[in-house]
Amino acid sequence: MLNNTLKIAVLPGDGIGREVMPACLELIDAAVGQAGAPPLVFETHQAGAQHYAETGEALPAAALEACRTSDAILFGAMGWPDIRFPDGTEIIPQLDLRMEFGLFAGVRPIRWFPGLPKVLSDPRAEGIDFVLVREQTEGLFYARGRGEVLNDQEAYDTMQITRAGTERVTEFAFQLAAQRKRRGKPGTVTCVDKANVFSSMAFFRKVFDEIAAKHTELQRDYAYVDALALNMVKRPWTLDVLVTENMFGDILSDLAAGLIGGMGMAPSADIGDTHGLFQPAHGTAPDIAGKGVANPGAMFLSGAMMLDWLAVKHGDQRLADAAGLIEAAVEHTLSTKIAVPMEYGGSANCAEMTRSVIGALGAVR
Amino acid sequence: MLNNTLKIAVLPGDGIGREVMPACLELIDAAVGQAGAPPLVFETHQAGAQHYAETGEALPAAALEACRTSDAILFGAMGWPDIRFPDGTEIIPQLDLRMEFGLFAGVRPIRWFPGLPKVLSDPRAEGIDFVLVREQTEGLFYARGRGEVLNDQEAYDTMQITRAGTERVTEFAFQLAAQRKRRGKPGTVTCVDKANVFSSMAFFRKVFDEIAAKHTELQRDYAYVDALALNMVKRPWTLDVLVTENMFGDILSDLAAGLIGGMGMAPSADIGDTHGLFQPAHGTAPDIAGKGVANPGAMFLSGAMMLDWLAVKHGDQRLADAAGLIEAAVEHTLSTKIAVPMEYGGSANCAEMTRSVIGALGAVR
Ligand SMILES: CC(C)[C@H](C(=O)O)[C@@H](O)C(=O)O
Ligand SMILES: CC(C)[C@H](C(=O)O)[C@@H](O)C(=O)O
Repeated sequence: MLNNTLKIAVLPGDGIGREVMPACLELIDAAVGQAGAPPLVFETHQAGAQHYAETGEALPAAALEACRTSDAILFGAMGWPDIRFPDGTEIIPQLDLRMEFGLFAGVRPIRWFPGLPKVLSDPRAEGIDFVLVREQTEGLFYARGRGEVLNDQEAYDTMQITRAGTERVTEFAFQLAAQRKRRGKPGTVTCVDKANVFSSMAFFRKVFDEIAAKHTELQRDYAYVDALALNMVKRPWTLDVLVTENMFGDILSDLAAGLIGGMGMAPSADIGDTHGLFQPAHGTAPDIAGKGVANPGAMFLSGAMMLDWLAVKHGDQRLADAAGLIEAAVEHTLSTKIAVPMEYGGSANCAEMTRSVIGALGAVR
Repeated sequence: MLNNTLKIAVLPGDGIGREVMPACLELIDAAVGQAGAPPLVFETHQAGAQHYAETGEALPAAALEACRTSDAILFGAMGWPDIRFPDGTEIIPQLDLRMEFGLFAGVRPIRWFPGLPKVLSDPRAEGIDFVLVREQTEGLFYARGRGEVLNDQEAYDTMQITRAGTERVTEFAFQLAAQRKRRGKPGTVTCVDKANVFSSMAFFRKVFDEIAAKHTELQRDYAYVDALALNMVKRPWTLDVLVTENMFGDILSDLAAGLIGGMGMAPSADIGDTHGLFQPAHGTAPDIAGKGVANPGAMFLSGAMMLDWLAVKHGDQRLADAAGLIEAAVEHTLSTKIAVPMEYGGSANCAEMTRSVIGALGAVR
């Protein structure tokens, strides 16, 4: 049980990140209070593209230091059209943070619940409940900043797969599947690769197999990434835990979010050995930013993932309760249609969604 | 107008490739006859994994030579579980053929028509009608056979993007969009890349832009591959022509097929400067192979793509008519439910589907 105050580094970032973040902090405060846990301390720092435009710094040292020394990092969204570094590259500090803190496991749960759009016509789609674990420190993203363009004629980017990197992300995926099994799930980890074509991917699958051999209580499965993309559309309700390379995971997690109506309810966690960063899967949404209409749902669910992670780390059930309250309140709000986000054809803006979800905390206790 | 006989190299391959191919040849014969065009000459060669197991050769020299000297290549499907080369790699001669004949444009049209499963619940999904153009001679697949695994500790695969490769596939995509425009389509080519992270992808986009500048009568658009995967689920009816890197195209084309119920109605064409290969997007389907239950629809539509391509190449309208007859007969069969493939919950096996579609040729003239 927790006996010191937990400090959270808060990076709202750009665009709608700045709108959904305050809403989330308010909700966390309320949920933590109702669960009887001591309040978290939030330390907010500006960072991102707009901050870069104003100050020349995208990720100030103080913000980075706060991330390093905090118990968790809560992240809104970063990036803005037309604000770029002098070399033309985009300002996306989230990638730097993944490398800096070794946030190797990008955890992207996709679950349908009543109130979410029914994107697929098959009624079994109501049973969508899987987690994609995206490796986040190597794979094709190893090439970031290392690519070569020769004579304006040819360009090369190299994908790296290491034994250590594959071991840790695979082990993570099996542990996650074991936890889910306790919730009555089949407990299958699917290795998603392209081992039929690339030797790095065959290596990924080989290392996956070695780790899988230690988890005989769980099932393992294999899929080529192209076939998996098809299956995600055809029968996503059969999926449980997927583990895959960085670039494949980037594509598949967006596809997966589409199955539940888009990014509006897709949270994510970037987990390392020592640090954890929690952010909605959506971006800064320049088209709607500043209007107060963003759906804070994914941010709320990311906050719940943070509380869950802190609960395990600190062995404090009250934080897990707070996480459960948030999830239940979000579901209650959507399923009873107390407030329907504009994104789903409703009229509730960010403030109204927040008020409704906070109000629902009491109803779901 | 054609004044010599066209020779088609026919490679049924493995599994259901051997079932849908004879069905397709029968249909082509009938359609070509009804359109008043001279019959095509088919030269069938065995190749693939099962042939390798029997003879030690996956793609015999005679088969390759037939492909080289024919007017088009009609391909079933190749590959088989557990039949591998001694080094453990899979037997997938289709990749060799793409390289051998420079089949740089993987053309994968996705169109919904009545009788196909309604996978997405949004009624606008009936308007799905786009074409994915996958670059097929470089990209990440450049790494095939070149990858390195060092000390069982780390593995590397390198992606290559060349100016020439990007120019030709982009030019192809714009020409395709222009043809579609004539059919009343908006004519937009979307460059699908990950230019925000990889310098090779930024180079791809830059070369795309240079080609786009020559096609001011058409629209251009850009999407990051992850966002495009989401949009393919959220609003695929807004897509027209997409052009992308080899690996991205592999993933996205399977996802796209999922939107119309799977690979059962997804044809493809692999087009180069001199050669064209036409094959269904599905594989060898070991689970149903040998039972005669495969849906030959994608093979039929691939045959129609071949006839269309030959029609343009040889300036012979009769071949285009034959292609149109096949497409119309397939649609007629499905929309009137004369025969419903087992894949869509019906009872028609391969022979029954074939009989029905050939029968429908008369009805749609
Ligand atoms: C912003 C972008 C670079 C990032 C990524 O590609 O990882 C995003 O798409 C994500 O999924 O977190
Ligand atoms: C069989 C496989 C190697 C191939 C590919 O990856 O290109 C297939 O998926 C395809 O799309 O044609």
